[in-house]
Amino acid sequence: MFSVTVRDHMMIAHSLRGEVFGPAQRLHGATYVVDATFRRADVDADGIVVDIARAAAALRSVVGELGYRNLDDEADLAGMNTTTEALARVVADRLADRVRSGALGDGAREIDGLIVTLRESHVAWASYERSL
Amino acid sequence: MFSVTVRDHMMIAHSLRGEVFGPAQRLHGATYVVDATFRRADVDADGIVVDIARAAAALRSVVGELGYRNLDDEADLAGMNTTTEALARVVADRLADRVRSGALGDGAREIDGLIVTLRESHVAWASYERSL
Amino acid sequence: MFSVTVRDHMMIAHSLRGEVFGPAQRLHGATYVVDATFRRADVDADGIVVDIARAAAALRSVVGELGYRNLDDEADLAGMNTTTEALARVVADRLADRVRSGALGDGAREIDGLIVTLRESHVAWASYERSL
Amino acid sequence: MFSVTVRDHMMIAHSLRGEVFGPAQRLHGATYVVDATFRRADVDADGIVVDIARAAAALRSVVGELGYRNLDDEADLAGMNTTTEALARVVADRLADRVRSGALGDGAREIDGLIVTLRESHVAWASYERSL
Amino acid sequence: MFSVTVRDHMMIAHSLRGEVFGPAQRLHGATYVVDATFRRADVDADGIVVDIARAAAALRSVVGELGYRNLDDEADLAGMNTTTEALARVVADRLADRVRSGALGDGAREIDGLIVTLRESHVAWASYERSL
Amino acid sequence: MFSVTVRDHMMIAHSLRGEVFGPAQRLHGATYVVDATFRRADVDADGIVVDIARAAAALRSVVGELGYRNLDDEADLAGMNTTTEALARVVADRLADRVRSGALGDGAREIDGLIVTLRESHVAWASYERSL
Repeated sequence: MFSVTVRDHMMIAHSLRGEVFGPAQRLHGATYVVDATFRRADVDADGIVVDIARAAAALRSVVGELGYRNLDDEADLAGMNTTTEALARVVADRLADRVRSGALGDGAREIDGLIVTLRESHVAWASYERSL
Repeated sequence: MFSVTVRDHMMIAHSLRGEVFGPAQRLHGATYVVDATFRRADVDADGIVVDIARAAAALRSVVGELGYRNLDDEADLAGMNTTTEALARVVADRLADRVRSGALGDGAREIDGLIVTLRESHVAWASYERSL
Repeated sequence: MFSVTVRDHMMIAHSLRGEVFGPAQRLHGATYVVDATFRRADVDADGIVVDIARAAAALRSVVGELGYRNLDDEADLAGMNTTTEALARVVADRLADRVRSGALGDGAREIDGLIVTLRESHVAWASYERSL
Repeated sequence: MFSVTVRDHMMIAHSLRGEVFGPAQRLHGATYVVDATFRRADVDADGIVVDIARAAAALRSVVGELGYRNLDDEADLAGMNTTTEALARVVADRLADRVRSGALGDGAREIDGLIVTLRESHVAWASYERSL
Repeated sequence: MFSVTVRDHMMIAHSLRGEVFGPAQRLHGATYVVDATFRRADVDADGIVVDIARAAAALRSVVGELGYRNLDDEADLAGMNTTTEALARVVADRLADRVRSGALGDGAREIDGLIVTLRESHVAWASYERSL
Repeated sequence: MFSVTVRDHMMIAHSLRGEVFGPAQRLHGATYVVDATFRRADVDADGIVVDIARAAAALRSVVGELGYRNLDDEADLAGMNTTTEALARVVADRLADRVRSGALGDGAREIDGLIVTLRESHVAWASYERSL
């Protein structure tokens, strides 16, 4: 099994609903350093899992939709708690859409799975893993 | 599959028994930077894998039992070689006990598995992965 | 010259005023990983620059005043652009107050200077350095 | 499941064939920070996955065969695109040969699998995972 | 004293002349993770040392002139050993030219100094520091 | 001003004397990731601050004298508290001796200063800086 990972980041404001979140119920924010891993059983004829420039551009596009925003006001995220876990899934699902649409190239349709990790600090991070 | 990871550390003295360990047979020590990963098929109604504050507290409690000690003198570890691999298992098993006892909250009983990684330097680390 | 550094972090929301900030004029947020360095010409009789537990507690106290908040609403920061550079100075000045008040111990009054670095992502950070 | 990882690095020149590589079709180079992970169901009687000194020496030997070279001129790699993915497999396969030959000790024959990760920059890396 | 740092990277091939370089006399390569630090006595009216987007673009432009190339063939570098130290100076001097030309904005002319660090691996790096 | 840094590590046991150290008065241990920075006004005729292989060997030699030991039993360190700050100075002074003795090559006598940083965890480190 091969994988390729690209890293980017996004800076957002949000608040979380539920007593479990303590002070994070207040409006605050985060930088998420985002690692997107593309997994594939074998490399293609060029010897790659995915065109890394297209993979980086796709990730840039996804984090660009979320970054520099107050996620509490985003219609697409209405009704969900934008926890690190939940945002990892949002990023992964949006990347999966781009893979399936061909935005990462025809060969990228051979990608078997995605893992997205959002690092919220030097001491905490969350991941979401899914197949394609 | 979702996961959440929290990081802490512990500073211990110990020695290792067996010729394979070379100079590490002498009394020496280590800082272990400890990453504890909690895995779960789905998030709960709050959108989380685990209450991260409780997860961090549980990890703090486990490393607090081991840190600032000479592990050669710990009754609980008598007769075992406290290698990085073996200590990763000790930390994981003690975290698993806390999860099952409800110390991380009732929801945390849905956690499927744990991965504990102990980084002993910038060039070496070990992990232990187990189900719950 | 000796120095000791402790690391903590804070998660805040804010917006920045001025065309130079582009999309960061919108309400967004950041995790700042904060490194506070205490500099001193010589160590004390215990062989330390500063009691590291007190240094960490002082930094915790300073980031606790700022974290999990929308800095746009903080009276203490009214009228300033809370850029990474400017926040590095806020943290350094507040730490300096604590050093001078004796909160880090009497010996800490021998500290010559402070450097505070705020890492806003894996690709950008800012520092402020001052004497005491 | 236990694992142990050791880190080393290699500095190489190469070029990549195929339009997908854009400017990387020109002769350029890379530092690969190489992480080799040895996985095993249980530890041995000494409490280890593998003799870490031998594991590090084996990795050193493998990266020593590739480093400080122009990979375009290496007979062993003739006809392949030396992408990060492909090189991760080369390193993993050569480590697997050493494990099977007994170079990491007899006990190392119990190793179940290998994961090799090559970090080409702070924003991109690739892995290859295989069984033994 | 304030500073702001931005990070980028470049991937190059080169060889070094002189017995001191041992195997690095052969054609090989490196990824340099490049940190450019802009120092300034005070922030401007916007509260910044430099427009970080322009700083990042300037660094991108400088590493873009060097990356994906065999430095042995670059006319601009003819006759010099492209050591990590020497390349740190090349990057710093080219950034200084851009600062002075106004490419980072008029306010950036108040920048007092630059530090450029090139990280060639996880265990070695070099810096060059200059005034402006 | 140029500098070159090399990284190594050492794993030691020790205890600290003085109430200020709390639980660290007990026998415990640490991994110190050690960064040694060599500073010099200009590079030599080869374009280097120091022969990096010799610099790394000198650092290896210094950490080899301290590592895999209980520092409480080391005659050379008798009567001192082996705090991170104090050990940074020990490493720097021993490196300075090696520079002056010619162990890093004749050219290395032009080195102006040293900075040694010991990272004891992901959240704390200490440095000692001296001239030569």
